[in-house]
Amino acid sequence: MTIIDGKKTAAEIKKEIAAEVNEIENKGGRAPHLAAILVGHDGGSETYVANKVKACGECGFRSSLIRFEDDVTEERLLEEIKRLNEDDGVDGFIVQLPLPKHIDEQRVIRAIDPDKDVDGFHPVNVGKMSIGLPGFVSATPAGIIELLRRYGVETKGKHAVVLGRSNIVGKPMATLLMQKANPGNCTVTVCHSATPNIKEICREADIIVAALGVPGFVTEDMVRPGATVIDVGTTRVPDATRKSGWRLRGDVDFDNVAEKCAFITPVPGGVGPMTICSLMMNTLKAYKG
Amino acid sequence: MTIIDGKKTAAEIKKEIAAEVNEIENKGGRAPHLAAILVGHDGGSETYVANKVKACGECGFRSSLIRFEDDVTEERLLEEIKRLNEDDGVDGFIVQLPLPKHIDEQRVIRAIDPDKDVDGFHPVNVGKMSIGLPGFVSATPAGIIELLRRYGVETKGKHAVVLGRSNIVGKPMATLLMQKANPGNCTVTVCHSATPNIKEICREADIIVAALGVPGFVTEDMVRPGATVIDVGTTRVPDATRKSGWRLRGDVDFDNVAEKCAFITPVPGGVGPMTICSLMMNTLKAYKG
Repeated sequence: MTIIDGKKTAAEIKKEIAAEVNEIENKGGRAPHLAAILVGHDGGSETYVANKVKACGECGFRSSLIRFEDDVTEERLLEEIKRLNEDDGVDGFIVQLPLPKHIDEQRVIRAIDPDKDVDGFHPVNVGKMSIGLPGFVSATPAGIIELLRRYGVETKGKHAVVLGRSNIVGKPMATLLMQKANPGNCTVTVCHSATPNIKEICREADIIVAALGVPGFVTEDMVRPGATVIDVGTTRVPDATRKSGWRLRGDVDFDNVAEKCAFITPVPGGVGPMTICSLMMNTLKAYKG
Repeated sequence: MTIIDGKKTAAEIKKEIAAEVNEIENKGGRAPHLAAILVGHDGGSETYVANKVKACGECGFRSSLIRFEDDVTEERLLEEIKRLNEDDGVDGFIVQLPLPKHIDEQRVIRAIDPDKDVDGFHPVNVGKMSIGLPGFVSATPAGIIELLRRYGVETKGKHAVVLGRSNIVGKPMATLLMQKANPGNCTVTVCHSATPNIKEICREADIIVAALGVPGFVTEDMVRPGATVIDVGTTRVPDATRKSGWRLRGDVDFDNVAEKCAFITPVPGGVGPMTICSLMMNTLKAYKG
């Protein structure tokens, strides 16, 4: 059994990116520049954005953080997006989600220049990914594909079962795994809240990608020996032994499932670190045009 | 066993559209207008476009056919698309595929105003469909969903197996069937050329959508009793008894499969007629804005 070390892989990739940026600067080029818009003071969002800014530093990128209060108007936000779209010094930018309820998230996303949409949330990037055209793939699925590639997990002809049908994980993950590509070429089954027999279907899987957000959902009896299990879940569960009072728990009952697997990602330290890493890869790609 | 009569359903829908157009005109409005660009003289393309023009007539739409010779330049084609994008008298238009090899199909598709892209091929429409936003869904999957709806085929919690992963049928079909919608809410498995055990997977299916383009691929032993079978295949096979020398054959061995099914579509007369019908529905939608 191999534990897929997302933290280590992410660190390696960031080093590779930093080396490339170093070379660009040695040749007289400027560093890639990622901007982030953060609205309000949600704890989770603050942490995510702080981690993204930190990762930019590790990659040698320039980063900008643009803050708005909770009561910012949609118009003001769209104005800022327009400014970033037009700023040749900004290669890519993200708007940290979720946004306050009075703002139409989809309208905001669609306002982003698709060529700067390093989160890959703009419909045109979603569509390009589906068709198999070059574009920006959303960070979590892209990070998982990168882990499968770097760990040499065989995917061709394998049966991948994706648990969850969200727009940012389940659906793009399914599309990427079925594409005529490597990693890819899987038979793909997507299960979700309306699937009556998830347990049986998981037992048929060579690869399980769990993205339901239900802690410990995937139990030992659902995994066949030699399967690869990718855990996208990151739910905060109470933990009195921690100073914070909580810890992250994945969708997989890791302690009992791990020994049956060929490959498995832990939580934390699996898919999570790769997500920010994908954002860095997308930013470098945006920079290169 | 119910044979899903696509020809009859398509005729009904066209009547419904014609009634709506009639009402629009009675109120002093102009008729919806679909334009089609046809390059060259491929027999299949000529037939498809002629059928689309005919369907426009049945729906009370205005139609325009714009022809170019095989040697038209990409620039000239893009110019024409720009003209149609800007023409307020044209609600929607299509560029009949395939195009000659010297023309970049994706570049042509991306030049179409997404709000006039009634074929639903533009990446932004593909992405919107995936995310579940309003937009134009490509004709064949949209037509299949309409058949499932009108025949009251239960989809929620059912296992749908899609054979084929093409951009215009397999992938969008899978996405539509898994959406939180009705029809929809299926567990969806996508099989393709790299799937080693298609037979076994089909045996688990409540709904099979066959879009491989392999005549007679789905045989009786692959279908479980009570399944719904949707046949998207339309391959021309030699037939000496016909004047034309050929007949259309689907991906399903209809004669032996039909009796096991709850619902099945024939070829011809199943999915085929619905495809053009979807284009008409999309055109009316484009007209309404």
